[in-house]
Amino acid sequence: MAQSPDSILQSLGIELPALAAPAANYVPSVRTGSLLFVSGQVSIGTAGKFVGKVGRDVTLEQGQQAARVCAINILANLKASLGSLDKVARIVKLVGFVNCIAEFEDPHKVVNGCSDLLTQVLGDKGKHARSAVGVATLPLNAAVEAEAIVEIA
Amino acid sequence: MAQSPDSILQSLGIELPALAAPAANYVPSVRTGSLLFVSGQVSIGTAGKFVGKVGRDVTLEQGQQAARVCAINILANLKASLGSLDKVARIVKLVGFVNCIAEFEDPHKVVNGCSDLLTQVLGDKGKHARSAVGVATLPLNAAVEAEAIVEIA
Amino acid sequence: MAQSPDSILQSLGIELPALAAPAANYVPSVRTGSLLFVSGQVSIGTAGKFVGKVGRDVTLEQGQQAARVCAINILANLKASLGSLDKVARIVKLVGFVNCIAEFEDPHKVVNGCSDLLTQVLGDKGKHARSAVGVATLPLNAAVEAEAIVEIA
Repeated sequence: MAQSPDSILQSLGIELPALAAPAANYVPSVRTGSLLFVSGQVSIGTAGKFVGKVGRDVTLEQGQQAARVCAINILANLKASLGSLDKVARIVKLVGFVNCIAEFEDPHKVVNGCSDLLTQVLGDKGKHARSAVGVATLPLNAAVEAEAIVEIA
Repeated sequence: MAQSPDSILQSLGIELPALAAPAANYVPSVRTGSLLFVSGQVSIGTAGKFVGKVGRDVTLEQGQQAARVCAINILANLKASLGSLDKVARIVKLVGFVNCIAEFEDPHKVVNGCSDLLTQVLGDKGKHARSAVGVATLPLNAAVEAEAIVEIA
Repeated sequence: MAQSPDSILQSLGIELPALAAPAANYVPSVRTGSLLFVSGQVSIGTAGKFVGKVGRDVTLEQGQQAARVCAINILANLKASLGSLDKVARIVKLVGFVNCIAEFEDPHKVVNGCSDLLTQVLGDKGKHARSAVGVATLPLNAAVEAEAIVEIA
């Protein structure tokens, strides 16, 4: 029998942070029909703080850790919005924005840090369609920002 | 009784522009089921023209005005597509792309200019999930571009 | 009677490539309800390889060819996922990310290379809502990346 997302998180030593209320006129997520649209989550939180540009201030490995923080923040968002991660039917789509220098050619490898944790915690339900791009800058100089579209069970 | 979106726009002195037809093989918006996907709207229109990079050519305050122009263009798009803003059930998701220098750390504050107007005009229906990112450049050197996903009543 | 997408592709001399399996924990596309979310497709494939920054290494015309390769990869993805392009009811939404220098003001003209082929092959079903942005960098230094949301018949 498959482990529950909560027990996998526990075995990984990950405690989901409380959801920070957005500081402006938007909300953490919006449900429409069976889809939940999750706001972009930056690589800053109780699980770690990664700021700066990948390829200059931040290594690839640190960038992957940054993307993992985004995944933790997405999971925290889902748990707070849905009550339980068991309500996740599928991570449908992920966009990973990487704050990096223009010469950096591996934004997709950075975003793997997010994709890997989502899949580790949610199994096949965590496997998503994805885009990864390298951008000029992100809010608060975060190293990574990731947004998700999720199908609800 | 809540004011209608049209009367709020009127009290703000905002006249929605006529919808410019895209100059290429795409369309202003596409409906699928109860969702309307609105094409990226740049900060250029009858409501104002904001071009250049935030953090160098454009101040934060001007960037917020630019994002407000994007919101006006989104509302114009919705009114043209749906016939009336009363058909908007919810602004589900917004992505704000800010044309800025790589050292600018406040793209989210820029995008607030868009989020604020949507919420001012549509109330709770205007509160959306959101991502804000800083990009290298935008069409026509626009300062801001914003796209939206909208649930239709 | 309208030509089928397959016969149009044939008349254009385009052979859809086999779908490359993603090299990480994500998948080429995910279906939810009547929507298919297609992962970002870069301008690298059997139909051509376009890398580098538009405005410096890559001309506008080459960028448009790069965007056309993205369209071919999207179509290949759709054919592999759906079995037949006849199952496409509508290309709902396209986001085109252009790897370009910060002074380049025509990312939308680059993305036209993708929009044009989708419309050429799918007719009115190919006409989509769209955003076009210029980004700092893309995976493998690809010149263009495009993702799509598709309604399934």
